[in-house]
Amino acid sequence: MRPGIVTLTTDFGMEGPYVAAMKGILLGLAPGVTMVDVCHSIAPQNVLEGAFVLTGIVDAFPEGTVHLAVVDPGVGTKRRLLAAKAAGQWFVLPDNGLLTGVARGHEVEAAWEIANPNLARREVSPTFHGRDVLAPAAAHLLKGGDPAELGPPTSKFVSIRNFEPTPAEDGCIGEVIFKDAFGNLITNIKKDQLAARPPGSWTVEIGGHRIEGIGRTYAESPAGSLVSLIGSGGWLEVAVVNGDAGRLLSAGPGATVWLRPKP
Amino acid sequence: MRPGIVTLTTDFGMEGPYVAAMKGILLGLAPGVTMVDVCHSIAPQNVLEGAFVLTGIVDAFPEGTVHLAVVDPGVGTKRRLLAAKAAGQWFVLPDNGLLTGVARGHEVEAAWEIANPNLARREVSPTFHGRDVLAPAAAHLLKGGDPAELGPPTSKFVSIRNFEPTPAEDGCIGEVIFKDAFGNLITNIKKDQLAARPPGSWTVEIGGHRIEGIGRTYAESPAGSLVSLIGSGGWLEVAVVNGDAGRLLSAGPGATVWLRPKP
Amino acid sequence: MRPGIVTLTTDFGMEGPYVAAMKGILLGLAPGVTMVDVCHSIAPQNVLEGAFVLTGIVDAFPEGTVHLAVVDPGVGTKRRLLAAKAAGQWFVLPDNGLLTGVARGHEVEAAWEIANPNLARREVSPTFHGRDVLAPAAAHLLKGGDPAELGPPTSKFVSIRNFEPTPAEDGCIGEVIFKDAFGNLITNIKKDQLAARPPGSWTVEIGGHRIEGIGRTYAESPAGSLVSLIGSGGWLEVAVVNGDAGRLLSAGPGATVWLRPKP
Repeated sequence: MRPGIVTLTTDFGMEGPYVAAMKGILLGLAPGVTMVDVCHSIAPQNVLEGAFVLTGIVDAFPEGTVHLAVVDPGVGTKRRLLAAKAAGQWFVLPDNGLLTGVARGHEVEAAWEIANPNLARREVSPTFHGRDVLAPAAAHLLKGGDPAELGPPTSKFVSIRNFEPTPAEDGCIGEVIFKDAFGNLITNIKKDQLAARPPGSWTVEIGGHRIEGIGRTYAESPAGSLVSLIGSGGWLEVAVVNGDAGRLLSAGPGATVWLRPKP
Repeated sequence: MRPGIVTLTTDFGMEGPYVAAMKGILLGLAPGVTMVDVCHSIAPQNVLEGAFVLTGIVDAFPEGTVHLAVVDPGVGTKRRLLAAKAAGQWFVLPDNGLLTGVARGHEVEAAWEIANPNLARREVSPTFHGRDVLAPAAAHLLKGGDPAELGPPTSKFVSIRNFEPTPAEDGCIGEVIFKDAFGNLITNIKKDQLAARPPGSWTVEIGGHRIEGIGRTYAESPAGSLVSLIGSGGWLEVAVVNGDAGRLLSAGPGATVWLRPKP
Repeated sequence: MRPGIVTLTTDFGMEGPYVAAMKGILLGLAPGVTMVDVCHSIAPQNVLEGAFVLTGIVDAFPEGTVHLAVVDPGVGTKRRLLAAKAAGQWFVLPDNGLLTGVARGHEVEAAWEIANPNLARREVSPTFHGRDVLAPAAAHLLKGGDPAELGPPTSKFVSIRNFEPTPAEDGCIGEVIFKDAFGNLITNIKKDQLAARPPGSWTVEIGGHRIEGIGRTYAESPAGSLVSLIGSGGWLEVAVVNGDAGRLLSAGPGATVWLRPKP
């Protein structure tokens, strides 16, 4: 059997030993596993950012992939840890809203609480469950272990509200949920919410700017133009051609976006 | 057959899901492939920086390695995508100058346009050809696929001028083409252009400073000294011993460098 | 035989080709090896930071892992290169103090100088021994090569002082040796130095602030609180709950920390 794939998404930063320590545990328990860093620069304790990033990878990975995500401000307290199955893949993470984005697009087929101390490391640091509890749980799944051994099944998980815009005036009021390295502002408005009209007949308003029509790609407009388009993840995004929309608009996650039909 | 090696060089940043999404596609299409991140912090749309970075790895990787490079401001427009062979390795990238640095040191043996929609993902985002077109093309080559299936052969590719200094006064006028994490300023002047005289008989001028002679390594001079030497990639570079030349000189890519014989 | 694991810790940054060039050499000489990035953002020439990071991974990796660490301000001069064995793992690094942190917690079982030119690359850049000497030495060990072929055995290595606090007044005077991405300040005071009293009966002083008692995890105190606890690596650390202690205290590596019994 080919060893599986595990992805890692954290707010640990790559400045210290934390990410590599998790990988050492994974390699020790599931030798030969393929590890893929998604990102480790989630803003500290920013569950929304982590939840967004997971939405951008779920459709790209093969079935059976285990996604280990650790943005865990409640580490060492009574918050639950989960192993959830969606889109034929596993999500191993704290139950604090990290699963919300994936769950918006894919049914959560089943979930188990991670609570079996025999599957954790012998000594569990109260500040690093990623290494001592979640990585061993991910290794258990990577080796084809029974998820029911991890703990009791569960059908509830914490959701955060940010992934659903509010319908308003034949359009909706959404918000920016991610700013990428180009400064593109990705909103919580999905492609299917624009299907009612042709792309050219919408307006997008953000930070006092109005964008007429939703384009197809960046380089259709002159450099420096503020444009909106459907990004590669299926979300409406606001961009500056060859520029930085976040900087131009002084905007980032949380900024309000109005989607309206053209008058 | 041992699965191959693919390297990844992009301007995507590691702050979002984009790099991992490409890797998911690679792993799905070419299971067991070894993936190596070169860097993802190329300044957005900076083709020169991407082209330089590729020159620094081509001599280090085994034959057959596939180098996937995505700095692609023209994504979704009519610019071509290429699979080029040089130094026994593959370069899969947009045809916008990214190949220039490699092509300066190594003959481009053959190249094909990437144009076969059957080898792309079924749904191609107009803003993410790295994931939807180039990664599948790379996977095709990694599995030993025929490059001619990708599209028509081609013998032309876009070059950028920055890799060739201008001869002048028994020396040349070059430019900085990369600033590394130490602040070392790497120029487009190659070791072989210095061969006419002993290293000690050249002067290097940059930003109003004159450096006498070309040294061998950093720690030969006292900490804080401004020095020049042939760096590990074979390019003339300007450095501050245990310091940051870019900061000292307020200089970076584009800064002019004069190489002259000592008077 | 399953190919081995090699970790990489450097001050190269991920902005250029240097890290990938080392990986290309490793993959060419030891095909199939599993490579794990620990971190490449060690502050330039900061041996202490590199030494700390290695302490955070040694207990997480399986026996036989090779840790390749390159923070090497003396590259190209007469400083020695070492292959040292500790905790059943290999450490391949310049002899400049990088091994100090690991050696504090684990006996160095044996060490060899790396001096055999036949095991280096044919052409050795005077500025990049990581790629041209250390990576090939690591590959030699990964393939099960005899360490004695690398060079003469040695029993001495350079130590830096920062890993040992000074006993004082029933407690000790230590220092911050690392600031992580959360802004947590990790000190050189180890868990076992606190064993003499219950955690609640110590005070920790840093930057004019006094913290009463040593806690168990972050989320025990209200957001914004300055707390101290034993971190996941077994070191006393100072943190702000959901905040950044480094920023609050304007402190980083080198800051003095007093550990005292409560009066």
